[in-house]
Amino acid sequence: MDISKEFEIHKIKGGVTAPKGYKAAGVACGIKQSGNKDMSLLVSERAATAAAVFTMNKMAAPPVHLSKKHLEDGKAQAVVINSGNANACTGEEGYGDAIKMAQATGSALGIDPHDVIVSSTGIIGVPLPMEKVEAGVKDAAGKLAVDGGGCAAEAIMTTDTFVKEYAVAFELDGADVRVGGMAKGSGMIAPNMATMLAVITTDASVPTELLKKMLVSAVDKSFNSITVDGDTSTNDMVALLANGESGVELTAAGADVFDSADVFQAALDEVCIELAKLIVKDGEGATKFIEIDVIGAAGNEDAKKAAMAIANSNLVKTAFFGQDANWGRIVAAVGYSSAKVDASKVDVYYGEEKLVENGRVVSYEEEKVTEIITAKNIKVTVDLKIGSGAARVWTCDFSYDYVKINAEYHT
Amino acid sequence: MDISKEFEIHKIKGGVTAPKGYKAAGVACGIKQSGNKDMSLLVSERAATAAAVFTMNKMAAPPVHLSKKHLEDGKAQAVVINSGNANACTGEEGYGDAIKMAQATGSALGIDPHDVIVSSTGIIGVPLPMEKVEAGVKDAAGKLAVDGGGCAAEAIMTTDTFVKEYAVAFELDGADVRVGGMAKGSGMIAPNMATMLAVITTDASVPTELLKKMLVSAVDKSFNSITVDGDTSTNDMVALLANGESGVELTAAGADVFDSADVFQAALDEVCIELAKLIVKDGEGATKFIEIDVIGAAGNEDAKKAAMAIANSNLVKTAFFGQDANWGRIVAAVGYSSAKVDASKVDVYYGEEKLVENGRVVSYEEEKVTEIITAKNIKVTVDLKIGSGAARVWTCDFSYDYVKINAEYHT
Repeated sequence: MDISKEFEIHKIKGGVTAPKGYKAAGVACGIKQSGNKDMSLLVSERAATAAAVFTMNKMAAPPVHLSKKHLEDGKAQAVVINSGNANACTGEEGYGDAIKMAQATGSALGIDPHDVIVSSTGIIGVPLPMEKVEAGVKDAAGKLAVDGGGCAAEAIMTTDTFVKEYAVAFELDGADVRVGGMAKGSGMIAPNMATMLAVITTDASVPTELLKKMLVSAVDKSFNSITVDGDTSTNDMVALLANGESGVELTAAGADVFDSADVFQAALDEVCIELAKLIVKDGEGATKFIEIDVIGAAGNEDAKKAAMAIANSNLVKTAFFGQDANWGRIVAAVGYSSAKVDASKVDVYYGEEKLVENGRVVSYEEEKVTEIITAKNIKVTVDLKIGSGAARVWTCDFSYDYVKINAEYHT
Repeated sequence: MDISKEFEIHKIKGGVTAPKGYKAAGVACGIKQSGNKDMSLLVSERAATAAAVFTMNKMAAPPVHLSKKHLEDGKAQAVVINSGNANACTGEEGYGDAIKMAQATGSALGIDPHDVIVSSTGIIGVPLPMEKVEAGVKDAAGKLAVDGGGCAAEAIMTTDTFVKEYAVAFELDGADVRVGGMAKGSGMIAPNMATMLAVITTDASVPTELLKKMLVSAVDKSFNSITVDGDTSTNDMVALLANGESGVELTAAGADVFDSADVFQAALDEVCIELAKLIVKDGEGATKFIEIDVIGAAGNEDAKKAAMAIANSNLVKTAFFGQDANWGRIVAAVGYSSAKVDASKVDVYYGEEKLVENGRVVSYEEEKVTEIITAKNIKVTVDLKIGSGAARVWTCDFSYDYVKINAEYHT
């Protein structure tokens, strides 16, 4: 049974301010030389339960360390994010600046600074311009609005070419419940380093431990299916706030039938997956969106390893940009992944068209394959035929513009 | 003490036919549409001891499986390599074709086909055109020459832009001993898939087990320091033949002083390292050659992991192409590598110029750094300052032409 359909989880307009009880704003405070928005502020009317997943990078930036600390009590009321400067590799001074950013937010909003999640994205190694930051926080606090989600989403962009928001609504116990989110990130072609940020809000009431568990599960299916686990930037974060304003409290009964937590998980998954897909679609220089399914693997983990090896191969990506059905590069990537593979069993499909059977090429309809690979959205399926493990990941192609964007992005 | 200097190991002209008792040839037999040379043949006057290191890819091509089998007895007399077609993902028919290629070589040379090492590189999934292959082997056998090493090296090229040869000579027990080699490979920017082939010859006499051990050691310091271990193409191979024509027999006494095996190892290392560097310099679209030293690591393995993370980062590579001192991307790569890292200790140098100290940027001379990063050869050193492990790897930058070459290379 499809929970999404059964409970009519449906897309609604907006992002982080789509759920009840949230306000947001995004302003320009001069961190970015371009004059574009660079200070994003999100506030919940009341303290919310909160959880976050952070980068595994050992060079994690000061705001990551501070936010982890602030989330130790499982609650938060505001998220402040600046773009244009990552406050990374800035040492103790950087940690002090992150604290000042939380304090400025706390005093502008009249809340405890420990209830502020702080995040930064942009250039590494340059101290935050604190005067601008503090003025920006104050300015944003004065512009908070219930329809400010879009501005907040705009203010976290770096090399992103469009604003990334998504929200859904559904009914639980007769009440309207909503989940909304914003994200930034566009470096999918080099997933191991591009900073990825996402903030998700809900007006459901969720106990902290359950919230954490559900976030980890959703992130695994979404943001961690467009990037390699553990290969993260210095600033990555996905944060989730639940303020309970809908009046609906989640329960996880662990029964055979769906409980409210299952429905909420489905809604949270959808928001995270759609935001993750938007990041891929905004891949630096991307011209194609590629969905990779690996099935028949020894286990789900093996399937993901094989799918990620394909999704991360520069040669596979450039072949898609060249609109060439270079299945050989896909097969080779599967072969060097650490997944269990029997070379004499591997099948490869482009769309519905089988190109490889039992590890070798079969005669296929050139015209159909040409039609598939010249489309903007491409689906690749690899069937390892040794088990029932499966995984789905998303990636984009690799164009001249990727090199251009990343070579010209100067420190 | 420096063995190379002590024993006057010096570079000489030529490649695989520089050592005594070898002949080689390279001809065009029509596998490549361009009409360029595509059949390479190397023969030793007498059966040699032989060892090889092959791809770990689970989709390894039929010639890899055949050559492994032929090397089980630790000897070989000829190496036949075609370029333009990898004979990969060609199933049992492909294995049959690899056998036919060995048989054609054996009958053309009047030697046992089991003493023939077979290799193929080029497009995946297309059956070898056996008529052309067999005619090519015959043609090459008729053109074998003691100065044919260059032609043989030319005939193994695919996207390579120049021939890769290197040879050294030194004196042992009063006799002249030589080690020579040829290589192909240019896809360093996508090291995980570009086929890399190398054939090394020597006129020393080396017992099989010792030969194997020394080859593994040399490959680790050279070809495996430009590519990620285990992330290999379907056809990678490094083969080493020792025919004893110099009259010098290696002994490994395991004594405190250098024995002949130590000297030979130094010579073999030099040949492998120089060939590996040539592959990097011919990186697809490369404009810069980058040497990365990681020192002060918890161990040598950790050092290599960190160095490889830097060397394989698309963002680091595009930054070098853009001639930007983006040390932040280097620090981030070190952070997501699986090496043990203390964020508050990391130092980063470009050339002799320190840019990062204890994990954060220091004030450095902009002009000096600009001079360093606009040069063609760049040296980066990362000091983790937690132990004495060290590793050196080589890589190149990432330019528009990488995308062009790999997007336009059609199946």
